[in-house]
Amino acid sequence: MLNAVGRDIPDEVNGRKLKPFKGAFSFKPKKRLYSPPLKAVFPREKKLLSLKDVIKKLVNDGMAISFHHHLRNGDAVVNKVVDEIAKLGIKNIKLAPTALFPVHEKLIEHIKKGVVTSIEGSLNGPLGEFASHGGLPEPVVLRSHGGRARAVRSGDLHVDVAFIAASMADDYGNANGMFGKSAFGAMGFAFADSMHADNVVILTDNLQPYPVTPISISQTFVDYVIAIDTIGDPSGIQTGTMRITRSPARLNIAKNVVKFLSIAGILKDGFSFQAGAGGTSLAVTKFLHEYMKKNGIIGDFVMGGITGYVVDMLEQGTTKKILDGQDFDLRAVQSIGRNPNHVEVSHIDFGDPHTGGCVVNRQTACFLGATEFDLDFNVNVNTHSDGLLLHGIGGHQDAAAGSFVTIVVAPLLRGRIPVIRKEVTTVSTPGETIDVIVTDRGIAINPRRDDLIEAVKGKMEIVDIEDLYKKAIRMVGIPKEPKFSDDIIAIVEYRDGTVLDVVRGIK
Amino acid sequence: MLNAVGRDIPDEVNGRKLKPFKGAFSFKPKKRLYSPPLKAVFPREKKLLSLKDVIKKLVNDGMAISFHHHLRNGDAVVNKVVDEIAKLGIKNIKLAPTALFPVHEKLIEHIKKGVVTSIEGSLNGPLGEFASHGGLPEPVVLRSHGGRARAVRSGDLHVDVAFIAASMADDYGNANGMFGKSAFGAMGFAFADSMHADNVVILTDNLQPYPVTPISISQTFVDYVIAIDTIGDPSGIQTGTMRITRSPARLNIAKNVVKFLSIAGILKDGFSFQAGAGGTSLAVTKFLHEYMKKNGIIGDFVMGGITGYVVDMLEQGTTKKILDGQDFDLRAVQSIGRNPNHVEVSHIDFGDPHTGGCVVNRQTACFLGATEFDLDFNVNVNTHSDGLLLHGIGGHQDAAAGSFVTIVVAPLLRGRIPVIRKEVTTVSTPGETIDVIVTDRGIAINPRRDDLIEAVKGKMEIVDIEDLYKKAIRMVGIPKEPKFSDDIIAIVEYRDGTVLDVVRGIK
Repeated sequence: MLNAVGRDIPDEVNGRKLKPFKGAFSFKPKKRLYSPPLKAVFPREKKLLSLKDVIKKLVNDGMAISFHHHLRNGDAVVNKVVDEIAKLGIKNIKLAPTALFPVHEKLIEHIKKGVVTSIEGSLNGPLGEFASHGGLPEPVVLRSHGGRARAVRSGDLHVDVAFIAASMADDYGNANGMFGKSAFGAMGFAFADSMHADNVVILTDNLQPYPVTPISISQTFVDYVIAIDTIGDPSGIQTGTMRITRSPARLNIAKNVVKFLSIAGILKDGFSFQAGAGGTSLAVTKFLHEYMKKNGIIGDFVMGGITGYVVDMLEQGTTKKILDGQDFDLRAVQSIGRNPNHVEVSHIDFGDPHTGGCVVNRQTACFLGATEFDLDFNVNVNTHSDGLLLHGIGGHQDAAAGSFVTIVVAPLLRGRIPVIRKEVTTVSTPGETIDVIVTDRGIAINPRRDDLIEAVKGKMEIVDIEDLYKKAIRMVGIPKEPKFSDDIIAIVEYRDGTVLDVVRGIK
Repeated sequence: MLNAVGRDIPDEVNGRKLKPFKGAFSFKPKKRLYSPPLKAVFPREKKLLSLKDVIKKLVNDGMAISFHHHLRNGDAVVNKVVDEIAKLGIKNIKLAPTALFPVHEKLIEHIKKGVVTSIEGSLNGPLGEFASHGGLPEPVVLRSHGGRARAVRSGDLHVDVAFIAASMADDYGNANGMFGKSAFGAMGFAFADSMHADNVVILTDNLQPYPVTPISISQTFVDYVIAIDTIGDPSGIQTGTMRITRSPARLNIAKNVVKFLSIAGILKDGFSFQAGAGGTSLAVTKFLHEYMKKNGIIGDFVMGGITGYVVDMLEQGTTKKILDGQDFDLRAVQSIGRNPNHVEVSHIDFGDPHTGGCVVNRQTACFLGATEFDLDFNVNVNTHSDGLLLHGIGGHQDAAAGSFVTIVVAPLLRGRIPVIRKEVTTVSTPGETIDVIVTDRGIAINPRRDDLIEAVKGKMEIVDIEDLYKKAIRMVGIPKEPKFSDDIIAIVEYRDGTVLDVVRGIK
């Protein structure tokens, strides 16, 4: 069956019935919130236990366990917990992390031994490559940040035990990520799990007297608290891709984004946007700040993925508030617990489409990356041109769906490989939610947005996306397609739970 | 069937099956959280509507609607909403307020006309008296603060539409009670309803630009926002009973509480307590503060019901933190949005027994009032000696169950009426959770607490509760019992949902 972005979606994969994607704003849920069991903890019962004892009490063969990825490539908790589960001889675990990173490569051994048999979560790097080569018995389920929150809240992703790393906690489970030696800032990913997992465990390397505040995760959701040596290394939060670009071409892309917003009349008081952490997105944030400061423009809020560049905006008055689901550098971490206008929000708040309305719905603009984009404005952020699954979806779908103007920033070529395609290898975000693509060799506007086309007509050069494609092909020729097997190694869900695409294994 | 406090509880009242109370720490829930329906609000959909339009969209005959009582006797929202419901010809509404006050007396007209046919919530004053005289077709259900949160979370109290007054909100539903002309402080009562009502509506007299922070209630829970002239008068928060006592006898009770805690070795670093707002409780807070300051004792937290007396403790360093579910005076309201160690918590956090553990479980002490107490240490706070239902349970049951030492402060007599009884008229809080009763004519310790008896033996005069009773009867004689009808006009639930007692109508 072809879905609304023209992809052939099987009715069923591995016993799981798939609902094909029917358009970004078509699916209204009929279900109710998933209900975890009620608990009773009586006065003076202790909740502080060892990791081993908690696993013995809560984890059985075949269960789903979850983790947040706020420490990104510095995380120490996933490996520690899965190692202990393996030691206890437990098998057939479904991992439901928000994302895994190269630091989690050693999970491959646990997969090979049958400790872990299934993953629903973003894969960045080696584990994705392993999946692409057919390493996992079941297809990975990829979801956006908002889509994962939705899946947990609806029960589509049932979590038996959520293991939540906290850089500060008390022995009753009140916890945050804002203070302590391993502080990582906002804990947006952990909220849905804390509220809807059947059992919730806090792991901390910084046990403080009761009651720990700010209370990001409330004691009422928490079954047990585990004190460990380290939850990880916060220096692993800021990875290589999170530095501002030095490429003149990409700096030029960033400048053109600001120019476009200004000419289109969008960049005015009340402006809000979602900041990314890619090199070009960081440059956009920096240039936006400079432009707004120079022109006395005051924005209402920035939603993030927050970096020091956004903190500059708050501190220097070009935005009134920061809504923060996760922090991408240590300056952001140092701001969130201290500046009352730098406010932690959950990824339910950020982007769950099946709520009373999430933050992305109120964003003026967002700036998103792409490994590929195509003539229908569809974007791929998951697979590389060699077909390997190497990245998660992040907040891409959510920001694109919600923002008044969604701008993709990407070079036309990466080396000899065109970023523009006739059809993207994998549809991560549907083209109907992408409004503008700013490349180093021209800006294309989605024909659906005649309002934007009208707004900049005669004031800025806009190119047809077909012409961008021809330009790329003239320069480097038509790229070789990767050779895929028939095996489905990943399912790409849209944020509403329908299926956008599937990823096949590499031959 | 006699329950664990010796009350005869019918199997069924008005079609509702009753579970008899079996002891304060005996009931473990087997249910799951109540699940409201998932929603979908797409980008640029508006949520700001008129009260009339919201009622037309959401409220039908026979539905349950809820309100918080943070504005207490200053509230303007309950009357406004029910008036509009009446105007639209809707009937048979169940009111599920956290509490009603004298200002809501005009609801009696709506009850007489069949607009409102049932109330589950605390009744203070005229509406209670009206219920005692058989004015309501169905018995009122009385619950403690934590018990009501539990009931909403478990679905025992199903709320179709929660109407939540906010002193500050944006047009997408982010809301708090901390700022604005009608600021009332913490919004603890509203959290359970915001998370578990099928529909949630914010009413505000202070619409501010998006996004409003602090975010007490998140936009994701909110269906509609209504802008109205006034949500009420915050000067109605602080009612007459909330001033420190001037009675020398009651001041002496307060002094004896501090003396008891000190002698028993309980009043030391790390001390925590729940503050009440009655005149004697306020005096206890003041004297505690003075004692702790003088002796260099630093407490961990105060849970409240917060007043300026507790804010003094925070500001002058005798407590490290305030956990705040509701504010009882304007000094507390002015502290909560501004002092980062004065932290808003929900009444789920405060006292819901069917969670991973609530705050009361961690309190060292609490100081509670009584209209009557008896030889089994049972306490009545609901009915007066004339049998009239005039008060809610408040946090009484919760604080008593959780705290390490629960102290009731009460005079032995009120005028010519003994406060001590052989058996209280109504059991509001079971005696097994009451440890010490400090009266103006002696201190009694519950025989269950031999640790406390041992701790003060020889250092402080302790009297047998039987002797206190004899003393009272010697002075004023055995009081006349009120004449009750056979009609059950109220059900007194214990916080776990079992039934402690029923209240019968007055002949």
